[in-house]
Amino acid sequence: MKVIDGGINAPIGFEAAGIEAGIKYQNRKDMAIIYSKKPCVVAGTFTSNLVKAAPVKWDMKVVSDSPFAQAVIVNTGIANAGTGVEGMGYCEKTAEEAGKVLGIPKESVLVGSTGVIGAQIPIDRIVAGISKLSEAKSHEKEDGTNASKAIMTTDTVNKELAVEVEIGGVTVTLGAMSKGSGMIHPNMCTMLGYVTTDANISKEVLTKLVKEDVVDTYNMISVDGDTSTNDTLLVMANGMANNEEIKEGTKEYEDFKEALHFINETQAKRLAGDGEGAQALIECKVINADTKENARILAKSVICSSLTKAAVYGHDANWGRILCALGYSGAKFDPDKMELYYQGASNSMLIYKDGMGVDYSEEAATEILKESEVRFLVDLKNGNETATAWGCDLTYDYVKINADYRS
Amino acid sequence: MKVIDGGINAPIGFEAAGIEAGIKYQNRKDMAIIYSKKPCVVAGTFTSNLVKAAPVKWDMKVVSDSPFAQAVIVNTGIANAGTGVEGMGYCEKTAEEAGKVLGIPKESVLVGSTGVIGAQIPIDRIVAGISKLSEAKSHEKEDGTNASKAIMTTDTVNKELAVEVEIGGVTVTLGAMSKGSGMIHPNMCTMLGYVTTDANISKEVLTKLVKEDVVDTYNMISVDGDTSTNDTLLVMANGMANNEEIKEGTKEYEDFKEALHFINETQAKRLAGDGEGAQALIECKVINADTKENARILAKSVICSSLTKAAVYGHDANWGRILCALGYSGAKFDPDKMELYYQGASNSMLIYKDGMGVDYSEEAATEILKESEVRFLVDLKNGNETATAWGCDLTYDYVKINADYRS
Repeated sequence: MKVIDGGINAPIGFEAAGIEAGIKYQNRKDMAIIYSKKPCVVAGTFTSNLVKAAPVKWDMKVVSDSPFAQAVIVNTGIANAGTGVEGMGYCEKTAEEAGKVLGIPKESVLVGSTGVIGAQIPIDRIVAGISKLSEAKSHEKEDGTNASKAIMTTDTVNKELAVEVEIGGVTVTLGAMSKGSGMIHPNMCTMLGYVTTDANISKEVLTKLVKEDVVDTYNMISVDGDTSTNDTLLVMANGMANNEEIKEGTKEYEDFKEALHFINETQAKRLAGDGEGAQALIECKVINADTKENARILAKSVICSSLTKAAVYGHDANWGRILCALGYSGAKFDPDKMELYYQGASNSMLIYKDGMGVDYSEEAATEILKESEVRFLVDLKNGNETATAWGCDLTYDYVKINADYRS
Repeated sequence: MKVIDGGINAPIGFEAAGIEAGIKYQNRKDMAIIYSKKPCVVAGTFTSNLVKAAPVKWDMKVVSDSPFAQAVIVNTGIANAGTGVEGMGYCEKTAEEAGKVLGIPKESVLVGSTGVIGAQIPIDRIVAGISKLSEAKSHEKEDGTNASKAIMTTDTVNKELAVEVEIGGVTVTLGAMSKGSGMIHPNMCTMLGYVTTDANISKEVLTKLVKEDVVDTYNMISVDGDTSTNDTLLVMANGMANNEEIKEGTKEYEDFKEALHFINETQAKRLAGDGEGAQALIECKVINADTKENARILAKSVICSSLTKAAVYGHDANWGRILCALGYSGAKFDPDKMELYYQGASNSMLIYKDGMGVDYSEEAATEILKESEVRFLVDLKNGNETATAWGCDLTYDYVKINADYRS
């Protein structure tokens, strides 16, 4: 597996574009297209929020009912959530227009929105945007980047990624773009993630792979504990690499799985590290747990704790808050048996053992907390299961960004 | 029922004091005593955190095994949590010393601690403090207030309260002091709450009343979602009002229940409103739910949402965040059937109906959000159950206080 330049239009047959459609602001890219020359099988996971945005409902139907999809139209600025029947209509109209312009059925057009909840989509601008996107789209790397930039909201960093992997002697490419910075607690999240690939794989196998992988990647990050109404991860495969079809239980399956996991984990970590106002990525790894589920619950509880997040921001080795977050997680473990380590880029430091803090160097711990990736290792000494979760510190800027969001 | 001056030593037979013991800081009251001339029946609820502080373990044993308790010794500065066998020893030593000085068995001494997790208690200062407390304690209102002030940590407001209520023709008094500002998500929480009363009531009946009432009071508040290792609510009754013993199913029971509920709800709201850095109390009331449990889950999800809390701080009528928090709560409801209202001190404003926002005045909504108590009413139109939860806005100061806590 090799990381290569580019993003969602790196795989064969994919085109992309990002443009200014004037949805909410002027002079800011706010619409993107992903288009595949050949129809794609598509797998998707969506928000667990009971209040689902119109585009989420639309995409769930396309993924479940259409054998193929061929395009994605995304807008930022307005989430098209909490918009009732009217919002659902705008969603269908978007797919209809894109279908007309691209010459494909509306049932093969996926739609994504992110932004403020409650406002209605200005459909005329969306329609005009679709025409511009259709003309602008290309296989050029730059247009992939434009698409990725167009889906950014409070993100400070463009998050695209591409890898090449040999599958049965054939080079297969995967590309991705993701956005999300606040309202991030995917389960699934206003996390939008798009992965493209030219791999030849069936919808069934792709769906299985995606469902299994999000549990350990996107679903293990949190910025603020707020699970959005719009979370969407879509993985599209057009088969144009011409590899032999990937079947379960083969080496090719494992190779593809590894590449997909790398893409998802990397993008998920980027979302956490670029959380609103964040200055540091926080990783919590729980090892030697009795069950995978307990490991996940414990790791996630630590990276979700406001007090732990604020302590990291303050470079304060206040490990009691980590212990506290483990304790209220709901998962069972023995606090007197577990060990806690702080880990820097190059060192690991025992902090807590036998039910109490050890005599560690406060100064050295503070140095670790000043790094841009702060890692906590929790050894439960209670089994063999492991899970890792990622979050970010809680800063003044998180409050500033969210006190001002709509203004 | 009548609110009267005073706090925990307002009921007959109770004495209190608060002093400077130099536990962590100089020139700051940090130890308190509550003492009853007659042994009390006592009911308690404690943190659900798996990591329980030593004093929580001690008090759980006293409440469960001792028929009576007669004194409470509380310190701030150090939580005596994550302190292993050593910490448990200091806890027992505290009870032993207090028992010796007060001439009562150590098994009737309750102990409370709040402060930083992980540090060991300076037992010599505690022992010296107990002597000072024993000399200083009195039935004077001022000494009750001193006790209440001595348990404050990041609290900005002293939270004591007393009421008189007629029970079967006899005046019964209840008093209370509570502290807690961060790590507040009681289930139970570093919420410490003490209620005293001279009512004549059995341990069984008192325990039932307390357990039922915390579910709708202390367990319905949250400052930051972090359930502390030290949460404790203790209710002590010494019977010195000489009312006829309060039995279940009587008018007297209902009268006492109402007074206790008033005490608990008022104190709980004070904790939420004085959350770390808070500028506003947020109340979310869910009505017409199918089950009480769903109503509780939904109300609590809203007041726990970081994005909602930040929006209140910014006076931004971003109702989509409330809708979103309801949606990810885990409780089932119909978003297309529910209605959302913003409520000020004197007005109520429909914001959301039929699955979308109504055409409300942004300006009027902003005015409501500027009040010191911001109220959201969620009408599910799905049954008859109601629940209310209380929290506070998320401000720069919350981050500041918790990035700096130990320094």
